[in-house]
Amino acid sequence: MVREVLSTRSWWGWGTVEGAVTGNERAALVERVAALLPGQDLTDHEPPDPVDLALPPARLRPPDSLAGCTSDDVTDRAAHAHGKAFRDVVRNLHGDLRHVPDLVVRPSTEQQVVDVLDWCGSAGVAVIPYGGGSSVVGGVEPRCTGYPGVVSLDLGRLDRVIEIDTTSRAARVQAGVFGPHLEDQLRPSGLTLRHFPQSFEFSTLGGWLATRASGHYATLTTHIDDLTESLRVVSPVGISESRRLPGSGAGPSPDRMFLGSEGTLGVITEAWMRLRDRPQHRAGASVRFADYPAAVAATRDIAQSGLHPSNCRLLDAAEAFLNAGVSAGGGVLVLAFESADHPVDASLARAVELCREHGGVVDAGPTRVSDDWRSSFLRMPYQRDALARIGMVVETFETACTWDRFEALHAAVTEAAQAAIREVCGVGVITCRFTHVYPDGPAPYFGVYAAGKWGSTVAQWDEIKAAVSEAIAAHGGTITHHHAVGRDHRPWYDRQRPEPFALALTAAKAALDPAGILNPGVLLPEPGVRGRVTW
Amino acid sequence: MVREVLSTRSWWGWGTVEGAVTGNERAALVERVAALLPGQDLTDHEPPDPVDLALPPARLRPPDSLAGCTSDDVTDRAAHAHGKAFRDVVRNLHGDLRHVPDLVVRPSTEQQVVDVLDWCGSAGVAVIPYGGGSSVVGGVEPRCTGYPGVVSLDLGRLDRVIEIDTTSRAARVQAGVFGPHLEDQLRPSGLTLRHFPQSFEFSTLGGWLATRASGHYATLTTHIDDLTESLRVVSPVGISESRRLPGSGAGPSPDRMFLGSEGTLGVITEAWMRLRDRPQHRAGASVRFADYPAAVAATRDIAQSGLHPSNCRLLDAAEAFLNAGVSAGGGVLVLAFESADHPVDASLARAVELCREHGGVVDAGPTRVSDDWRSSFLRMPYQRDALARIGMVVETFETACTWDRFEALHAAVTEAAQAAIREVCGVGVITCRFTHVYPDGPAPYFGVYAAGKWGSTVAQWDEIKAAVSEAIAAHGGTITHHHAVGRDHRPWYDRQRPEPFALALTAAKAALDPAGILNPGVLLPEPGVRGRVTW
Repeated sequence: MVREVLSTRSWWGWGTVEGAVTGNERAALVERVAALLPGQDLTDHEPPDPVDLALPPARLRPPDSLAGCTSDDVTDRAAHAHGKAFRDVVRNLHGDLRHVPDLVVRPSTEQQVVDVLDWCGSAGVAVIPYGGGSSVVGGVEPRCTGYPGVVSLDLGRLDRVIEIDTTSRAARVQAGVFGPHLEDQLRPSGLTLRHFPQSFEFSTLGGWLATRASGHYATLTTHIDDLTESLRVVSPVGISESRRLPGSGAGPSPDRMFLGSEGTLGVITEAWMRLRDRPQHRAGASVRFADYPAAVAATRDIAQSGLHPSNCRLLDAAEAFLNAGVSAGGGVLVLAFESADHPVDASLARAVELCREHGGVVDAGPTRVSDDWRSSFLRMPYQRDALARIGMVVETFETACTWDRFEALHAAVTEAAQAAIREVCGVGVITCRFTHVYPDGPAPYFGVYAAGKWGSTVAQWDEIKAAVSEAIAAHGGTITHHHAVGRDHRPWYDRQRPEPFALALTAAKAALDPAGILNPGVLLPEPGVRGRVTW
Repeated sequence: MVREVLSTRSWWGWGTVEGAVTGNERAALVERVAALLPGQDLTDHEPPDPVDLALPPARLRPPDSLAGCTSDDVTDRAAHAHGKAFRDVVRNLHGDLRHVPDLVVRPSTEQQVVDVLDWCGSAGVAVIPYGGGSSVVGGVEPRCTGYPGVVSLDLGRLDRVIEIDTTSRAARVQAGVFGPHLEDQLRPSGLTLRHFPQSFEFSTLGGWLATRASGHYATLTTHIDDLTESLRVVSPVGISESRRLPGSGAGPSPDRMFLGSEGTLGVITEAWMRLRDRPQHRAGASVRFADYPAAVAATRDIAQSGLHPSNCRLLDAAEAFLNAGVSAGGGVLVLAFESADHPVDASLARAVELCREHGGVVDAGPTRVSDDWRSSFLRMPYQRDALARIGMVVETFETACTWDRFEALHAAVTEAAQAAIREVCGVGVITCRFTHVYPDGPAPYFGVYAAGKWGSTVAQWDEIKAAVSEAIAAHGGTITHHHAVGRDHRPWYDRQRPEPFALALTAAKAALDPAGILNPGVLLPEPGVRGRVTW
């Protein structure tokens, strides 16, 4: 077997080792926290070396044909044990790796994916499809019992753009490609996917598709679903490939069954993705409000105007202050328009006019908030790690609801978070921004920053998370707009999902994955008995 | 049991008896055909009275609790035996009703829908959900064997708008409502669904949802899918109701499983639909081209421009001449923009500029083609009936494909149609227009007008249809962009659909409809053995 070197990827935290927050950046961050939380213990906790963790030995040996792409290296296995949620990172820092894959397999051909499923199917071994490993919902964690072993199926070597159709503006892309490498390969054609989730640098096309990720666009093409022309998926019973179609009304959409299936129905190996020309025309502004309900009303008017801004991010007062350094009692709306074809100044002007009707004031330096915010966007996960190391509770959660319910949902979630923070942390703050807006409702994204107690921060966060999830469920929100379900959202997803749909999905899963080996415990309960699967 | 009077709906043809083409309109139509086809037998054939057809007696009696909403009237049953395709209308004219439902049940409450499914499930009776009956793919025809009886479940009494949320711009609507009655109920709120398929007057919301109908908008919200916020569906194993959400990433979308399920998984009884404000700003133009490939290239540029026209209908030369009376060797592009919020003149100007770059010439009377075309749009099915009565073969079919494949698909379909027309009809013409356009491809809609032989026109059409469907399949098109699959598209749908998805859909169907009573033969094969269903 091959011993993989993880290049410079961090095994325990976000991104690369080199990208971590250190030196002056770290000092300034700690100083800011210390000023807000006098007396708080801010001791830094180094991650352990996985070699010292006495992980259980791998229970599996791959067939000879797969040995060349299989690793049982301890650090490699440790790096594939968790996603990148706050609770994952903290457990890594504590060396708390209860569930570790036995092997990491890195196929470089689709046939090897087929071979892995064949081998694991016959051996009853669980398979966890793995893209960039940026799940924040326990989606890649082998938290499953009753299997003789678990394989983490890392698709990172399937990373090529195979074909570009410049006429239809679409590309056939292997699913394991990371965001930057995808855009690099598209660049010579002048086309771009422009799907930029916060995880962009360290997540893959296949991961985006399997989890219905959302990206750059605040309106219209919010989820990766909308950019998908066709999918190729290896299931244990065969390969599913949909026809390349711009639109179809032939029965329920096959692609829509695999989009969001989170590795439970098959392994996405390729997709034809819709591309676009790079934007040539841009316009943006940030608008301050004294009153939050007025800011929400202005944002709703824009969402319902048909102007289709590419960015329409309403930061509440706390979010604007903490992440953009701007004081605005009612928050700041960051607006942007873009087009490859025509000027968008008139669209921006109309959006700003709608804001003014609700008391909005355009910032003198129109793009300042936007630029500041964008530059910190990709740093946020690194800063989260630095804060996790000094015992802070730092995490995000998100939802979507209709406009008529937003005010009550926002109040209930805020209240639930604040009560839980008081109860379990003492001091903390909750912030809210809209990541995406629809004519019928916003997608609010919340951040929690609270004073933790080292050794208890996972439990503290879990209590806050349970409280806010109950508030979301009680007020008709979805348990996730784009973070997926995984294992961690299951209690609320199970209530949200219509029961007949659960029956249908369970039956579909049993048909495609009769041995029940694919990502057990995600979306659906882990089969009770192996071999003779009861769902 | 109640004897239903069918008001003025035609039992055999499109729409109402009063709407039929008669008098001067009919004389002009026949004269035009006679001029084109000298020597053709154009004898008019009256529809028979169903009372004279000696239909088999109903094999079922409803339970007493459902007797009040059940009809076994012969004309009622005959009217529910077929959809409204050319082959349906012609078979009606011939009195060829081989498969007729035993009963027509018209529930006025959702509980009665539950009761019908309970009764039919326990008795093994097939149930065909029926909206407006405008299927053109055999979707409502009880062409199923091995059942002791068939119920046509007519949802027309579930016709109310129950609730309007003006903040989120959405309405909770019962599925049996017809288009005009839906818009009437929405009008006081100032909101509109603006979903206008050609069948608008005689089709229902539930039918649109079950078949993934497409409507008014040439871009963005082309299918009813995009206007759907949540669905309520009665399945034999329980009621499925999704949460009202503007967007969600929680697993595969439950709604997307029922959208396009064509009555095979459950009966849609309610939906929350996304509405919009009525348009205040409009702009339109029609642009003539000398060269069809140039016209296609211009249309593609507009589809990829992000201008989002509400109408972007490219009529080829034959279509422009036959249906709009315009001579243009390369066809006519009918463009329209609309907005409730802002002027759209700049968008039209940019679209026209793109046309000029490809040699397009704007018509002096910019909306003439548009207005003429629109006024004839709703008359077309009536005219089709009049032509069917005089022995013409008149039908449409449609697809969608990526731009890179359009030229070859168009050539192959045209050639296949012309060859089949020559072979089976002698003389005829095929026309093409785009009903919808996407950044990655158009949805071409074809019309066939051919000289038939009375008594053989169904067989003649079936041969043409098979030929063009093979051409569509061979060139990567979908067997339907918005006409659904039903029973008639099954041979091509079965090849288009990925096999693993067929397994998953079959399993989902078995989970939701364990007795296999729901619209058997649609999308999936009819169960081989009743009672103990084998899929």
